[in-house]
Amino acid sequence: MSAGSLQNFFEPQGVVVVGARRSFGFGYGIPLFLQKQGWGNRLYLVNSAGGQVHGQNVYKRVRDVSSPVDLAIVIVPAEAVPGVMEEIGERGIRSVIIETAGFAEIGKRGMALQERVKAIAMQYRMRVIGPNCVGVVNTENKFCSVELIEESLAPGPLSIIAQSGVFGNILLDHLPQYGLSISKAVTLGNRLDVDESDVLDYLDRDPMTQVIMMYLEGATNGRRLMQSLAHVTQKKPVLILKSGRTEAGKRATASHTGSMSGEDNIYRAAFAQAGAIRAESLSQLIDLARVFATQPLLKGNRLGIITTSGSLGALATDVAVSSGLTVPPLSSFMVTQAREISPNWMNVKNPLDTGPSGIYGKLLPMLLADPGIDMVLAIMVIPYVAVRHFKSVGMTARDWFGDIASIRERYPDKPLLGVVVGHPAFVEDITSLCGRSMPIFTSPELAAQALATLWSYSKTRKKSGDRRSDIS
Amino acid sequence: MSAGSLQNFFEPQGVVVVGARRSFGFGYGIPLFLQKQGWGNRLYLVNSAGGQVHGQNVYKRVRDVSSPVDLAIVIVPAEAVPGVMEEIGERGIRSVIIETAGFAEIGKRGMALQERVKAIAMQYRMRVIGPNCVGVVNTENKFCSVELIEESLAPGPLSIIAQSGVFGNILLDHLPQYGLSISKAVTLGNRLDVDESDVLDYLDRDPMTQVIMMYLEGATNGRRLMQSLAHVTQKKPVLILKSGRTEAGKRATASHTGSMSGEDNIYRAAFAQAGAIRAESLSQLIDLARVFATQPLLKGNRLGIITTSGSLGALATDVAVSSGLTVPPLSSFMVTQAREISPNWMNVKNPLDTGPSGIYGKLLPMLLADPGIDMVLAIMVIPYVAVRHFKSVGMTARDWFGDIASIRERYPDKPLLGVVVGHPAFVEDITSLCGRSMPIFTSPELAAQALATLWSYSKTRKKSGDRRSDIS
Repeated sequence: MSAGSLQNFFEPQGVVVVGARRSFGFGYGIPLFLQKQGWGNRLYLVNSAGGQVHGQNVYKRVRDVSSPVDLAIVIVPAEAVPGVMEEIGERGIRSVIIETAGFAEIGKRGMALQERVKAIAMQYRMRVIGPNCVGVVNTENKFCSVELIEESLAPGPLSIIAQSGVFGNILLDHLPQYGLSISKAVTLGNRLDVDESDVLDYLDRDPMTQVIMMYLEGATNGRRLMQSLAHVTQKKPVLILKSGRTEAGKRATASHTGSMSGEDNIYRAAFAQAGAIRAESLSQLIDLARVFATQPLLKGNRLGIITTSGSLGALATDVAVSSGLTVPPLSSFMVTQAREISPNWMNVKNPLDTGPSGIYGKLLPMLLADPGIDMVLAIMVIPYVAVRHFKSVGMTARDWFGDIASIRERYPDKPLLGVVVGHPAFVEDITSLCGRSMPIFTSPELAAQALATLWSYSKTRKKSGDRRSDIS
Repeated sequence: MSAGSLQNFFEPQGVVVVGARRSFGFGYGIPLFLQKQGWGNRLYLVNSAGGQVHGQNVYKRVRDVSSPVDLAIVIVPAEAVPGVMEEIGERGIRSVIIETAGFAEIGKRGMALQERVKAIAMQYRMRVIGPNCVGVVNTENKFCSVELIEESLAPGPLSIIAQSGVFGNILLDHLPQYGLSISKAVTLGNRLDVDESDVLDYLDRDPMTQVIMMYLEGATNGRRLMQSLAHVTQKKPVLILKSGRTEAGKRATASHTGSMSGEDNIYRAAFAQAGAIRAESLSQLIDLARVFATQPLLKGNRLGIITTSGSLGALATDVAVSSGLTVPPLSSFMVTQAREISPNWMNVKNPLDTGPSGIYGKLLPMLLADPGIDMVLAIMVIPYVAVRHFKSVGMTARDWFGDIASIRERYPDKPLLGVVVGHPAFVEDITSLCGRSMPIFTSPELAAQALATLWSYSKTRKKSGDRRSDIS
C-alpha cells in the first residue's frame, strides 16, 4: 500500500472507537476528548454492552454503524482484538489504530496473537498503527487518538515519531514551555504494519511539518528507513534519538515494544550518510528541536560570541572550534564601530567580552550585522547581587542587555542563541527579554554544540541543493 | 610560605578595606556587606579622601589604622595599587586581596604593573590573592570579600575555586536552587601569588569542605597542581571544568585572566592520573556537584533502574553500560517479592518498567534493598493529562510514586537519582516529592552518566584506601 493511505489516520471522515466505556481509562477519555475537540458529529462508539457513553449512543457491533467511517480506534482487551478486527474489516474500514497492549512485547503468546491480527489486517488490506501505542495527533484539525492537554494542541512546525506512547506524550507535555508546538505526532508501538518509514514519507509531504523528531528503538526495515531519511532530510531536518545502543539496552527495548535494535555503529554511519541528525540524549534531542524549529539554516560556520563573562566565552569557543565552527576575528568595520563606543579597558575581539561596560545592547546588533559572522552566541550573566542593585534603581535587564527580542527580529537570517546561568529570577528575566524565537541555554558548551549541529545539517542541505541544480 | 598561611584570608582578625567610598561600586558595597554580616567591629576603611562611609570613620592611610589587622582588601585604581601595597607592607599586614583589574590581562603595560606589585609582595613576604578577582567567601563566619545574596550564605559542603570572579559569582547564584550550599569560595584572578594548588592544599585540610568545584584556565605550576590534586582527591572529590582546550579557546583565556592554558590532552591525562574528575561542560560541572554533594560513594557498579517509561529505561541502560556500570538481573528474592504484588503484564526485571501498575512506591524500596544493586535510578514520567485526572480525584504524586523523600532516607548508603521530564507543574511536583537529598535530572542519559562518574571516583578512593591499608 502507498504511504499516501496514511491520510485517513490524520484526517478521517468518520471514526469508530471500539471499546468505548463509562469507567475511567482510554475507552472513557478518548471519546470525551474527541467530543470536546469538535469531532462528536463524526464519532461513533462501539461496545458489546451497548448503552450510552458521554451522551452518545453506543453500538453493540461495528457493523451497526451505518454512517461513513474510514478509521477505527481499538481499545478492547488483547484477546478480543482479532474478533474486533474481523468486524472492522467486514465493515470496510481500512485504517485502524490498535492501542491495546499485550502483544509481541510480552513474549511468545502475545507474538502469536499479533500474528493473527496481522493476518486479518492483510486479508482486508487494512493499514494498522500499533498495537501497544497511543496512535496519532494532528493539531491542525484537533484529531487525536490520545487525550492531550490544551497547551499541546497549538499547531506548530514540529512533528514527532515515537515508538513508545509515553515517550511521545512527555515530549508533547514538555515542549510547550519553550513555546514549541507540534503539527503531527505518531506513536507506533509494536509496528504490526505502519512503521517509521511510512510516517517519514507522509511527513515529507506534509506542508505543516518543518522539523521531525524521532525516537527509535530499531528499524523494521533498515534499508527502507535510510531511503526515506535520505529523501526527507533534503527538505526537513530529522532529529533522531535511538536506544538499544548496547546489548543491555537492546534487551530493555525487546520487552518494551518487541523491537530488535540492531548494531549501533551501523545505525550511526547510516544516519550520517542519510543526512539525519542523531541526538546523544533526550535533553540534546529537545535542545536541537528548540534550535532547528526557531533558527534559520546557516550559510557558513563563522561564530561570533558576545559575553559578559570571559570564562563562559572561552568555554563556548573551545566546543565551537572542536565541533567544526570557527570563531574568526571581527571585521575591521565592526572593530572600528565598536571601539568608538567602548571603554578603553575593553578588548574588541571575538569572543567579545563586554564586561560591565553596559553597551551589550549596542554591540550585539553590530555583531549580528558583521558580514564576517554567520551566527551569534549571546552569553548573559551578571552576579545577582548586581542585578538587585540595578533593580533597586529602576534598571531592568533590557537596560543592561538591550531589547534583545527586537534585535533578534532585525537579523532573521542569522541564528542567534542565548546562554544564561545564575539566580532563577535572573534566568527568568533574560528568558523573557529574549522572547520565544531565541532558544536559551544554561550551558555555553551545549549552545555551541547545537550551533555546530545546525551547521553540519546546513552543509548537507547545501550539498543536496547543489546536486539538484546540477541535475536541472 | 606554607599553604597554612591562607587562614588569614578566610578567618581574619581584622580587615582593612583600601578604596572604601561613598559612590556605587565594590568600594561602597563590600564594606556595607561586611557590616551587615557582623564584621563592623573588625573592619577598617581607608581612602586618601578620608571622611565617613556607612557611618564608619575613613582613615586616610593604612598606617593610621592602629587596631589589629591581618588582611587587606584592595579596591583602588590599578595605578594606585603599588603605593597602597607599600603602605600595607609597612603596616605589617601579610595577607592581601587585590580586586582591582587592569594588570596582566590587559597586555604589556598591565603585566609590568603586576610585576611591580609582585616585587613589593615578595619584599614584605605578603601572600596575595588576585589581582583581577573578587577574593574569598567563607559562609561559616560570613567573611566575604565580595557581596553575595543571602541564599548563597548558608553553609554547606561545596567549596569553589575559580579563576574568574564572575564565574564564581554565578555558581554561588545558581547552586542554591538545588538546595546546595557552599563552605568556601575563592576567585584567583591573575594569580600573582596564591594559585589553585595553594587553595587545594588549604581546602584539603578544611573540615567543612567535602567536595571541591574548580574552574581552571591553566595551571601556574602543572606538576604542583597534580601533586595537590593527587593528595586531596584521596579524601575529597575534585570536579574540574577547564577551558583553553583549543587554540582559539586559549587565546580567549589569555586576554581574560592572562592565563596560558597548556596542551589539553596533557591536562586530561594528568587529571585522570591524579583522581580528579573533569566536567565536559558547565552544566555537567553543576550536575556532578549535585550528585557528589548529596550521594554516598559507591561500593560497586551495579545499577538498578525503576521507570514508568520503557524507552527512558532503555536510554539510561545504554549510557550506564557504555560508561562502566552494569544493569544486572535482580536478585531472586527481590523478583519473588516483586511478583507477589505486581500485575501479570509486568515484567519483573532490571530495568523495572512499572508502567501504570501504581506500585512504584512499593517497588522502589525493594530495589534499594536488593543486595545485588549498588545504586538506583528512579525515572518518573506520566502524561500530564493523566496527572490532571489523578489530581481531580484527589490523588497526588505521592500516591503514585510513594513517599520518595523518606524512602531515600531509609537507604542512605546507596546513591539514588531521579529523572523527570514533561509538564513543568509535574516536574515541580516530583522535585518536591523527592526532597533535597535526591538530585533530579531531566535526561535519563545525564543521570546515568553522573552515576558512572561517581563510580569512577569511588573506585579511585577504594584503591587509595586499599593502598593505605597495605601500608599500615
